[in-house]
Amino acid sequence: MKELRRKDRAIAEEEAMALLNKAEYGVLSTVDESGQPYGVPLNYCVIGHCLYFHSTVEGHKIDNIRKNLLVSFCVVGNTELLADQFGTKYESVIVSGKVEEVFDTNKQIGLEGLLHKYSAEFFDKGIKYIESLREKTRVFKISINTLTGKAR
Amino acid sequence: MKELRRKDRAIAEEEAMALLNKAEYGVLSTVDESGQPYGVPLNYCVIGHCLYFHSTVEGHKIDNIRKNLLVSFCVVGNTELLADQFGTKYESVIVSGKVEEVFDTNKQIGLEGLLHKYSAEFFDKGIKYIESLREKTRVFKISINTLTGKAR
Repeated sequence: MKELRRKDRAIAEEEAMALLNKAEYGVLSTVDESGQPYGVPLNYCVIGHCLYFHSTVEGHKIDNIRKNLLVSFCVVGNTELLADQFGTKYESVIVSGKVEEVFDTNKQIGLEGLLHKYSAEFFDKGIKYIESLREKTRVFKISINTLTGKAR
Repeated sequence: MKELRRKDRAIAEEEAMALLNKAEYGVLSTVDESGQPYGVPLNYCVIGHCLYFHSTVEGHKIDNIRKNLLVSFCVVGNTELLADQFGTKYESVIVSGKVEEVFDTNKQIGLEGLLHKYSAEFFDKGIKYIESLREKTRVFKISINTLTGKAR
């Protein structure tokens, strides 16, 4: 990850982690063997210094990940159009890292983390839901290599 | 681009274009020589079957584009968390295509398209702003190869 061209737009890692923790979704960027990138929106959760997401057993992003574990993950927070200044005020975080599939205990940790974030008030029902879909769901963990926050 | 695994989530190309036209920003995914993807949020506009965006003269995405013209562009519309169903209702469009820098008349067309979309009420002032920053701004065009709409 290149150094930020505009240092004045850099926000501290702590703020970047805060945005990463609270954002509703992010866009995962992967790439296929031909060099074609693919960006797709995902729900996710943060546990420690890692991001977790789940998916069904097959799909485009999984095909890409199988060949190349390098990914980028982008979340955008508040945006405010400044029409008279020909710009947009926004806050964003861009993560680069390696993704790996997780199993067993780590798979459960990831799924419960997603439940905590998105369905905390239905946690018990969610635990049963997880059990019923366990074989139809895969869980992936992104280990954060770089974390770049930007605010303009 | 693979065929959508869940046909029931496919939305017609017309709806996808409508979302692409109205969304405030999208995430551009590019990839560097080492195979590391990079997703970054951008303002953009749609003209014909192409997307236009502008940037300053240097930066990470420009370094990537210089080596590999293949990009992905993702916009997300309305999202609604369905906590009790352990899912999120969302609408999104994913574009794949090739990017190229444009100059002269096409550069002006792109910049004016961005003004129309984001700063229509300050158009005359914007035209002067464009002129003053012309040498400090680059404009890129993504020719849409595939357009995939998803709604769940």
